Amino acid sequence: MFKVTFAFEDGSKVEAFANAGDNLLEVARGANVAIDAPCSGNGACGKCRVQLKGGEVDSKKTLHISDEEFEKGWRLACMSKISADVEVLVPDIASAYKSRMKVADLSSKEEIAIFEKAKSQIEETGIQFRNSLEVVELQMAEPSLDDTMPDVERLTRALRKFMNLNRIRVPYAVLRKLPDVLRASKFSVKCVVRVTPNDMFVYDIFDSKEDVIMGGLAVDIGTTTVSAVIINMATGEILAKSSSGNGQIRYGADVINRIIETTKPGGIKKLQDAVIKETINPMIHEMCRSIHLPENQIYRMCVASNTTMNHLFAGINADYLRTEPYIPAFFKTNSMFASDVGIEINKDAHIIMAPNIGSYVGGDITAGALVSMIWNRPEFSLFIDLGTNGELVFGNSDFMMSCACSAGPAFEGGDISCGMRATDGAIEACTIDKETMEPTYKIVGEPGTKPVGLCGSGIIDVISELYMTGIINPKGKFVREGKRIRHDHYGMGSYVIAFEEEAGSSKDVEITEVDIDNFIRAKGAIFSAIRTMLSSLDFDVSMIDDVYVAGGIGSGINMQNAVNIGMFPDVPLEKFHYIGNSSLTGAYLMLYSTEAEKKTYDLAANMTYMELSTVPTYMDEFVGACFIPHTDASMFPNVHQR
Amino acid sequence: MFKVTFAFEDGSKVEAFANAGDNLLEVARGANVAIDAPCSGNGACGKCRVQLKGGEVDSKKTLHISDEEFEKGWRLACMSKISADVEVLVPDIASAYKSRMKVADLSSKEEIAIFEKAKSQIEETGIQFRNSLEVVELQMAEPSLDDTMPDVERLTRALRKFMNLNRIRVPYAVLRKLPDVLRASKFSVKCVVRVTPNDMFVYDIFDSKEDVIMGGLAVDIGTTTVSAVIINMATGEILAKSSSGNGQIRYGADVINRIIETTKPGGIKKLQDAVIKETINPMIHEMCRSIHLPENQIYRMCVASNTTMNHLFAGINADYLRTEPYIPAFFKTNSMFASDVGIEINKDAHIIMAPNIGSYVGGDITAGALVSMIWNRPEFSLFIDLGTNGELVFGNSDFMMSCACSAGPAFEGGDISCGMRATDGAIEACTIDKETMEPTYKIVGEPGTKPVGLCGSGIIDVISELYMTGIINPKGKFVREGKRIRHDHYGMGSYVIAFEEEAGSSKDVEITEVDIDNFIRAKGAIFSAIRTMLSSLDFDVSMIDDVYVAGGIGSGINMQNAVNIGMFPDVPLEKFHYIGNSSLTGAYLMLYSTEAEKKTYDLAANMTYMELSTVPTYMDEFVGACFIPHTDASMFPNVHQR
Repeated sequence: MFKVTFAFEDGSKVEAFANAGDNLLEVARGANVAIDAPCSGNGACGKCRVQLKGGEVDSKKTLHISDEEFEKGWRLACMSKISADVEVLVPDIASAYKSRMKVADLSSKEEIAIFEKAKSQIEETGIQFRNSLEVVELQMAEPSLDDTMPDVERLTRALRKFMNLNRIRVPYAVLRKLPDVLRASKFSVKCVVRVTPNDMFVYDIFDSKEDVIMGGLAVDIGTTTVSAVIINMATGEILAKSSSGNGQIRYGADVINRIIETTKPGGIKKLQDAVIKETINPMIHEMCRSIHLPENQIYRMCVASNTTMNHLFAGINADYLRTEPYIPAFFKTNSMFASDVGIEINKDAHIIMAPNIGSYVGGDITAGALVSMIWNRPEFSLFIDLGTNGELVFGNSDFMMSCACSAGPAFEGGDISCGMRATDGAIEACTIDKETMEPTYKIVGEPGTKPVGLCGSGIIDVISELYMTGIINPKGKFVREGKRIRHDHYGMGSYVIAFEEEAGSSKDVEITEVDIDNFIRAKGAIFSAIRTMLSSLDFDVSMIDDVYVAGGIGSGINMQNAVNIGMFPDVPLEKFHYIGNSSLTGAYLMLYSTEAEKKTYDLAANMTYMELSTVPTYMDEFVGACFIPHTDASMFPNVHQR
Repeated sequence: MFKVTFAFEDGSKVEAFANAGDNLLEVARGANVAIDAPCSGNGACGKCRVQLKGGEVDSKKTLHISDEEFEKGWRLACMSKISADVEVLVPDIASAYKSRMKVADLSSKEEIAIFEKAKSQIEETGIQFRNSLEVVELQMAEPSLDDTMPDVERLTRALRKFMNLNRIRVPYAVLRKLPDVLRASKFSVKCVVRVTPNDMFVYDIFDSKEDVIMGGLAVDIGTTTVSAVIINMATGEILAKSSSGNGQIRYGADVINRIIETTKPGGIKKLQDAVIKETINPMIHEMCRSIHLPENQIYRMCVASNTTMNHLFAGINADYLRTEPYIPAFFKTNSMFASDVGIEINKDAHIIMAPNIGSYVGGDITAGALVSMIWNRPEFSLFIDLGTNGELVFGNSDFMMSCACSAGPAFEGGDISCGMRATDGAIEACTIDKETMEPTYKIVGEPGTKPVGLCGSGIIDVISELYMTGIINPKGKFVREGKRIRHDHYGMGSYVIAFEEEAGSSKDVEITEVDIDNFIRAKGAIFSAIRTMLSSLDFDVSMIDDVYVAGGIGSGINMQNAVNIGMFPDVPLEKFHYIGNSSLTGAYLMLYSTEAEKKTYDLAANMTYMELSTVPTYMDEFVGACFIPHTDASMFPNVHQR
């Protein structure tokens, strides 16, 4: 056994023990040390860089580590085996994806505004905002020797007086606490019930003197980021909000790598645990703690996520999504409960899921489509959700069509050497001076936060600026020289946005030709998907009336720059609307309003799913789009003018 | 820490460690050594006798241990504290109640006959024997790129073709296995479903090539003994049968002591675990193993038990049963599932419970009343269930009245120094020669089994014989002398049925005046309850047309002897019918037949509950009945003639 010490930039350390030959990345995982490995640890992404501080590892050299860096002790954890006691530095950037959970400060109205806006827009269409949960107050006669009716029968008799329903179900959880609550309250209680036309289900019972909050939980499970709100089911008020990295990230950045991971022994459970036990449950506990709400008082949950994520969440074999004919286990579920999957809220809480419509267009998109309001307007709108996958919906009040393209994790900072999520230290916006080629940037976090890497909106800005200042050419190759422009000995160029001295990391924050190439493929996938889908409907991009952009790319996205690089069609800027995390907003609406939930099922049932991979022209479109902005300049007249 | 060694009569040993001052009985419990303590360990019952083999304990002397026995090292475990390393012998009789689980040999038709008889009797009344569970076979089209319907939707579409139902619920357990089963079976499956007028619930799914058995579980939870059968829900066939001591016995022999035990911290969980984890689950596993049925393929459970037992089974505070106004938590439950209480069968299996009708007349009696067929005849019948409590139902097709009396555990061998359950080594029948006063007895078990103690039917015989041979007088005092009759130095008499040399125990098998006195109280409670209930209806015992006797007292019960000692009314012998464990039989009927289940609810709803303790004359009746056979000889004309 050897001792493995992981040191962090803040000076803290974690120690673990390992056998000779053990993989360093696996040792880190075992010790709960977060090291990103978007490629799932096969040496492809180069994200898991660590630096030797003492001892040695048996490490393969890879293209991701230069000779000079190797000399300095840099190694890829996934390509290193334990051969001695060793201490390695885990730089912040190596865990930029890691589960940094954040509970939002709701005193800032901005956090809530997006939900209220969506709600009022939908309310205007006539959809009622109410659900089947209610708090019912009951005063029962106390039992005596002359009135020996048992507790359950006494309760149901009282409830039946209140609402004349045939079937009243008192589940085990309530049965168990019933005798004590009845007596402590002197038979004066409040019940949390669900009332449907056929029956009543009693979720909970309290002394009538207590203030009873009926909590609800809406969760957006993104491939990279998980976001959630706890709401008051009686009023719709947002009580708490939180986000966190998806704990599954260490098993791969994209859905395909994660599905592959599930095919290993115990894999399905491992991926389910990563998102539920390690990610969602801690978020629930943190939110509940912050608002003093017992977890048990959350009586319904709504999940919106892509098809793979909701399969992994449910612990269901997702491998059939990956192989022809790409069949999901479900579009809708009607019988899943919190206790089934180990979500730590009221065990009888129903989990509803925003419906999938295909193996690659899931509940995040149907929930997002609800929020986009496309379905309520005669105008033709395009809805784009920029997640780890890119999904599109195009249509109006008469029809909707949807497709997905594999953009990869670039929009969330994956596949980019200095990429990261839009968390503290991320450069989220950037301009570059045409003359001096010096950058000016904006960083996520408190003033004074040093740059650690680039998030999606920052990458768009940097690439757009590099292009508009003539530093790179349409193919993404460096064509100007300067202090910030470097070439390695393979001739590969890069641009340094922040040198190591100014950076909050032990490494320059830079963007390389490989990064730019990766990003061009990602944006090319999006643009070509837009073109392909519209063409199949005999539409041209100029016929788009509105573009709704959603996703974790950040509210800082500069639409002009996104057009400049050929990611979005060259339509007037005022047609673009950033609608935030529409998946979470949609989950909120479905959770709170039974009619909104039904509406989402209707939308899903009426949405046509287009499988891009079966369209012959898609590949041609994609190749054309892998240019800045495009091989066909006529598609971006305004960009060329600029 | 001291070492405590428990040695057994078969030579085996168990070692444990304990601190000075620890209670020896508690140490035994902690080490899983079964030592009966029907009084719950307060020194009252004298059952927990152990014999020192080495070392010493700090032990109080009690009336239960004579000076001579004390000299020989006998101690009550509950009255002994650890003060040194010690080794004690745990005699077989000290754990005669212990959880000896027995899986019945069903090749003997007798085991099954009782269920078949009950079923055919009930069938004759027009009650249908069918339930809502079905196996449905489905052949689905395999998905293709042109037919990408997801698995759940494909399954529900196929089920809907089969039965046109609006709502088809596919629970999590099925959802999870669905993708793999569909593909392994090439979309040709068998589903276990429950079909009700409103909806269909899919319990399970299999490859259609598999033989699918839908299992059901009926359990009688007696205060002393738990009995169970696993049945085929499609045919009603008994597949396996088992019985075991109720693991709760170590917390007290009667329901009151057990309820008191639940009021201690963690007590409710402890008692629930004792009956579920330690008793019922092992029975399920043993039965399933014997018939090669996966536990998961048991889709419904029916429990019949007294009101306290079903509260403790459900882990519900039972303390309100014990204090005025004696209110149960429930008569019926409609929403309890196997996973709620940790019964290890299919997690979605419903647990139905034979309904209670009062705090001391529970589901064992309503299920038993169903079996007794009292409700179907114009004749007046008396149904007696001799358990740890004695319960009575009297009536006919027009009315039924029920009451309970606290007989104590004497009928099952409790409260009797050499008493035991009707398991191997129990003397179940006995005659005594009038001249020689020598006994002849019959023992439960293989030929050659040596006597260990007396079970209920044996005690009835011995007391009846002692009385009829003039060895004891109507007060139960010894009035003849002989080799088998002894008196201790307080003058208390006893009769030795088997001397230590002939016994399978390290102690004489004898019956003492204290035992006889305890038994007289028990039988007096039964007889006076019969008299009191009948009087309240203006009936006399002579008007009873039939007497149905049920309970664990054993099929060997000699009705004549039971009449002789004044336990049952002096009516012609042919009026008595022993119907075995009617609680288990009733649970079986309710499990298998939805109509029989409904019938039991109807019976319960129409049964009048009489609280004996509120009847002023009950005490007088009881005092009169505490005589052999009774103070009023005119009530037993035939006995006196003999």
